[in-house]
Amino acid sequence: MSEGAFAHVALVGLGLLGSSLAQAIAAHLPDTRVTGTDASPEVRARAAELRLCQILDDPAGAVRGADLVILCVPIGAMAEAAATLRPGLSPDAIVSDVGSSKQTVARAIAEALPGHTVIPAHPVAGTERSGPDAGFASLFHNRWCILTPPEHADAAQVARLAAFWEALGAHVETMDPAHHDLVLAVTSHLPHLIAYTIVGTASDLEEVTRGEVIKYSAGGFRDFTRIAASDPTMWRDVFLSNRDAVLEMLQRFTEDLTALQRAIRWGDGEALFELFSKTRAIRRSIIAEGQDDARPDFGRADHGD
Amino acid sequence: MSEGAFAHVALVGLGLLGSSLAQAIAAHLPDTRVTGTDASPEVRARAAELRLCQILDDPAGAVRGADLVILCVPIGAMAEAAATLRPGLSPDAIVSDVGSSKQTVARAIAEALPGHTVIPAHPVAGTERSGPDAGFASLFHNRWCILTPPEHADAAQVARLAAFWEALGAHVETMDPAHHDLVLAVTSHLPHLIAYTIVGTASDLEEVTRGEVIKYSAGGFRDFTRIAASDPTMWRDVFLSNRDAVLEMLQRFTEDLTALQRAIRWGDGEALFELFSKTRAIRRSIIAEGQDDARPDFGRADHGD
Repeated sequence: MSEGAFAHVALVGLGLLGSSLAQAIAAHLPDTRVTGTDASPEVRARAAELRLCQILDDPAGAVRGADLVILCVPIGAMAEAAATLRPGLSPDAIVSDVGSSKQTVARAIAEALPGHTVIPAHPVAGTERSGPDAGFASLFHNRWCILTPPEHADAAQVARLAAFWEALGAHVETMDPAHHDLVLAVTSHLPHLIAYTIVGTASDLEEVTRGEVIKYSAGGFRDFTRIAASDPTMWRDVFLSNRDAVLEMLQRFTEDLTALQRAIRWGDGEALFELFSKTRAIRRSIIAEGQDDARPDFGRADHGD
Repeated sequence: MSEGAFAHVALVGLGLLGSSLAQAIAAHLPDTRVTGTDASPEVRARAAELRLCQILDDPAGAVRGADLVILCVPIGAMAEAAATLRPGLSPDAIVSDVGSSKQTVARAIAEALPGHTVIPAHPVAGTERSGPDAGFASLFHNRWCILTPPEHADAAQVARLAAFWEALGAHVETMDPAHHDLVLAVTSHLPHLIAYTIVGTASDLEEVTRGEVIKYSAGGFRDFTRIAASDPTMWRDVFLSNRDAVLEMLQRFTEDLTALQRAIRWGDGEALFELFSKTRAIRRSIIAEGQDDARPDFGRADHGD
């Protein structure tokens, strides 16, 4: 085990992120002891069946002796999860998390665990699946993990946590929590909000049936249904906790959409063409930086059949 | 060759759709003669290099003797393309197209070719790529092709065209053109409009750099960049030609988005949870009906690396 490596990682919450972490640690850091727990008895039973890690019923017992504790629960459940594990928490442990918004979460965990070292983190990775069966070891490969250490955090502790994520295949960036929340509002939260909305709009029409929406979804709609199939509890909590940044980005989006609406109404083909031309460049960059599949249609399997 | 099959198909326009048609016909209807042309000399040269079909410079020459002519040009170019091929068009030929909006296109082609049989069609299939290199033979496999025959169309001719698309692997549906335009406004046009808008919004921010948008795009944003990389000319024409239906759907979307915005502002977690729960069902149906890949993240290749 290399210097500074964690000997024992405890995972609190065994959904997509927690179960992926268990598998990623087993694959990349086989000498690390991993314990886990979940508030749901069904999830704990399934996690044990899958042999994800050593499963304990009691949160305090699950974190006992761990030098890294990672909270992998929905944002709204962070404070309570932190409070219940507190009796077992070692004074030397680093407490971290995987939440998608960082200011609220950092505050909630710090308040629940006064005197403990808290270094929030957000691996920008996931799929539309949830639950302990959804995890896989390579989820963090070539994805970014953003650490948002508090101002007076110990640099050595931050470096230990960064090395842990790098060992799982991630690239690590540190960021101010407020800036994180603004960046993710545009790259993740607004896209989810819009996807949920359009899928809702399409399913509520009277003139177009749901069957028609499904049949002709290959025209573009189906791309939105993937992220609109994400976990409802997780996403409710994201929007409630990152409210201000999401509303700010939504305001800008709405302004831009209104301008486009006006261009369509008045037949302004030049304005439409200009916008539609500049948006191609961003996809090229995303592919060039390895953040998406270069094949058409994301490389979906339904082409070759 | 089976009864009613076309002996000679002429393709006018050799972009993604035209070049896919050439390859699909070669693969599935090898006895059919295929000729093609394109307004661009570069595209014609490239199509000849790719041996897509017999390429002719002159539209009238390309359609001479064809019993099926398919216009595969952007909607705004349909009228002109129809006018230029007219001198070579056989009086018995069926003229069809692949345009994404049908009322405007049907009118434009019928006006340019008085006395000819016009049966508009729309294969709901495509990728974000364009040009003659983007085509592939299986583009229409298991996708829907919607025919919008005029009221007094000859049923036998409609059946011939339907059989042609079925031979290429598509399912065929016939529909009233106005209803087609409404259905596609929600399953294709609105999704493209929204994707173009959010990608534009994200690239114009001051507080978040373009580099950050690209790095953290795996949080959801990257899903939108695929369709926002689609052909600008084609999409400008779609919005200009299907204006009323697009504006109607956009109005509904905006109302729904405003309701969600209000729920976020007032911390109404129940409203958010309720919407986020009901949108999962649609994705399940789309997958069950074979219109999308069942694997997480569309089965993108970047998981296993």
